[in-house]
Amino acid sequence: MKILITGGDGFCGWPTSLHLSSKGHDIHIIDNLSRRAIATALNYESLTNIYSIHERIEKWYELTGRSISFSNINVAENYAALQSEIASFNPECIVHLAAQRSAPYSMMSVDSGNYTLSNNVLTTNNVLKAITEHNRAIKFVHLGSIGVYGYEDRDFEIAEGKTHFSGCDKNNRPYSLKAQIPFNPTSIYHLSKSQITSLLNFYTRNYGLNITDLYQGIVWGTQTSETNIAPELSNRFDYDEIYGTVLNRFVVQAQSGLPITVYGRGEQTRAFIHIQDTVRCIETAVNSGATHSGDVDVMHQIAETRTVKSVADHVAKLVHGSIKHVVNPRDEEEEHRYILENTKFKQLGLSQLNTLGDNLLDEIQNVVDKNLHRIDQTCIDPKVQWGKVSQKPDNECAVKRVGKTPAKSAARPALQAAAMG
Amino acid sequence: MKILITGGDGFCGWPTSLHLSSKGHDIHIIDNLSRRAIATALNYESLTNIYSIHERIEKWYELTGRSISFSNINVAENYAALQSEIASFNPECIVHLAAQRSAPYSMMSVDSGNYTLSNNVLTTNNVLKAITEHNRAIKFVHLGSIGVYGYEDRDFEIAEGKTHFSGCDKNNRPYSLKAQIPFNPTSIYHLSKSQITSLLNFYTRNYGLNITDLYQGIVWGTQTSETNIAPELSNRFDYDEIYGTVLNRFVVQAQSGLPITVYGRGEQTRAFIHIQDTVRCIETAVNSGATHSGDVDVMHQIAETRTVKSVADHVAKLVHGSIKHVVNPRDEEEEHRYILENTKFKQLGLSQLNTLGDNLLDEIQNVVDKNLHRIDQTCIDPKVQWGKVSQKPDNECAVKRVGKTPAKSAARPALQAAAMG
Repeated sequence: MKILITGGDGFCGWPTSLHLSSKGHDIHIIDNLSRRAIATALNYESLTNIYSIHERIEKWYELTGRSISFSNINVAENYAALQSEIASFNPECIVHLAAQRSAPYSMMSVDSGNYTLSNNVLTTNNVLKAITEHNRAIKFVHLGSIGVYGYEDRDFEIAEGKTHFSGCDKNNRPYSLKAQIPFNPTSIYHLSKSQITSLLNFYTRNYGLNITDLYQGIVWGTQTSETNIAPELSNRFDYDEIYGTVLNRFVVQAQSGLPITVYGRGEQTRAFIHIQDTVRCIETAVNSGATHSGDVDVMHQIAETRTVKSVADHVAKLVHGSIKHVVNPRDEEEEHRYILENTKFKQLGLSQLNTLGDNLLDEIQNVVDKNLHRIDQTCIDPKVQWGKVSQKPDNECAVKRVGKTPAKSAARPALQAAAMG
Repeated sequence: MKILITGGDGFCGWPTSLHLSSKGHDIHIIDNLSRRAIATALNYESLTNIYSIHERIEKWYELTGRSISFSNINVAENYAALQSEIASFNPECIVHLAAQRSAPYSMMSVDSGNYTLSNNVLTTNNVLKAITEHNRAIKFVHLGSIGVYGYEDRDFEIAEGKTHFSGCDKNNRPYSLKAQIPFNPTSIYHLSKSQITSLLNFYTRNYGLNITDLYQGIVWGTQTSETNIAPELSNRFDYDEIYGTVLNRFVVQAQSGLPITVYGRGEQTRAFIHIQDTVRCIETAVNSGATHSGDVDVMHQIAETRTVKSVADHVAKLVHGSIKHVVNPRDEEEEHRYILENTKFKQLGLSQLNTLGDNLLDEIQNVVDKNLHRIDQTCIDPKVQWGKVSQKPDNECAVKRVGKTPAKSAARPALQAAAMG
């Protein structure tokens, strides 16, 4: 199948590109390399050494004989270029991963928030518009976030997609309708993903597009069967306060002899998935064919839910580390019931997803051990504050808010200009 | 009260500024005059002659002794300037009217759609962020659209704000929750308004802001008690295919001896409100004080619902005009039940809103009669097509799609650059 992958150089995008290429699909990547630019501007680099997109693609061809093509295009800002790529490559499927994907990044400043909103919404609108104009049969797979639901205490299962509701109006006229469980995003990033949902509904209903939306949990792990083949194919590993996800941060802290820092009480429940399963899920979605429901096909891309504290305990036990609770910089419930439906991927034949108990944690430890000399310990503590109503201004984290060096703080406005301009 | 009005030079903004000033409030307008720039670029000018914002403000001061201040700022793009205006004016209330407000404009091209999405979302995010940083007690009144619900056939009343739903999950666990009736926007403009709703919820829940969202119907009429005082204070009157609302277009057609063109069968039901009542509703919302529900206070700003056909019949009868049905360029149900709750303004003491049967239609006729020589008959027929699934490419409207002159078509890209850059 001819598959266009936007954001194909990123943390989920690169392993997805390799995985789908290894299955014999014809892959074309569009990416503006913004994740690399942001890492440089923040001075928060991947723990693994990552090669340029050209070196990556060359090595993949050398080792497998499979070619991947690449175009450097800003999908949010250059509709004409996107259009001409789609016209010439003529994809049967577009996997849309181009997005600013960090919640803390979106909460850094008004500029980083606005960039996240406009970049994520406009990339998606442009791709959908281009599909509408070029060929409405192209399957569109979007990588969303399970975080759009927020973390209220809910004692019922959150359905994958629309579910039936009933109610009565003021005059006791009964009604029933289909709707998703209401969203309650707690960061501008998650808000951007909930806004994309309204775009996907719009194009499905008004133009009949064939759309699958994957609500992904927190991704852990680094490598997949394909990125592991050679150092040049390595995936990125982020452990900083902005892009590092919780498990990566914990392992780096433990392996460095630092206490594992849990935000608040740690009873927050989160959904997790390993990067190896991310690429399997996307492959399954790509192969799932047209949806005929007339609705966006929402799938929960998760393997399990766990509390943050249980993840910390797990890492601490394996690495003999200690745990330290710090004031939570985020605006979130610290204890809540959270039950997510998780049946669609099973129905499509995908089962036995990796969980944290499995030995894949060894792989993270190996990655960290091999790169111990590259760890920057100052980039882990949270500096970005959500600024919520109940938050006290003077806490342990707030004093570090200015960033570690003046040079880095100065780099941020430049980053915005570069990323948005 | 010190009230900052964004978009205070626009069709709703200018009469609102005058009305609140006449009630003794201290008014500061922020506007980038984009509506004037778009009119010039489209070459679709207001039927009434409108004066510059400076002339408007001077005449108001001369006649009433009340001063209104003004700053030309692009709220979407210049957060620092917005911040410093809020810090120096120190408003108790912000009435946020800065938006691209035309559905057909948002459907003209990918650029006009992206401009509508990013402009409307980012202006709102910037104002809310600035309130969060400056003073969270500032009341925020947003002018939304009743069009966010879409036009599905619904035989129950659409509640103002959240309503109770109940359902069962897959394991028959019953639950009940509060949510709004799901949105189903049928244009990118209405989509932008539904995305703003998610922003308003985000800032209410996470930062405790005090927000009222007015879901306004289609506005008819031109002048209010204050804009009527002198020609220099006149409000704009749009009757073109892009910004002209349905009643204005009908009266201009009828008074020009043209048939009244109804899109499709005309059984679409719409909500209406007169501009005089728009300013009274906004005044009521401004004075309604803090909301203590913990939710955005949603109010339906409408006087009545009617089918488009009944509006056409009404105009045709008054002016002895004829009606002609044309292929509907929009993607919408042409017959549906549509019942909107409309109690909150009544509870706040505002009643007896003007309806189409009242003699205010005379005023529109007068406006049109006085400006008959200024009418451009070629700007009324619809050229912008929604491009929906079921739409036939060859219809009566499609042939006119290119615009009336090459000069005008050429002006559009330039407009985008000006408005977005």
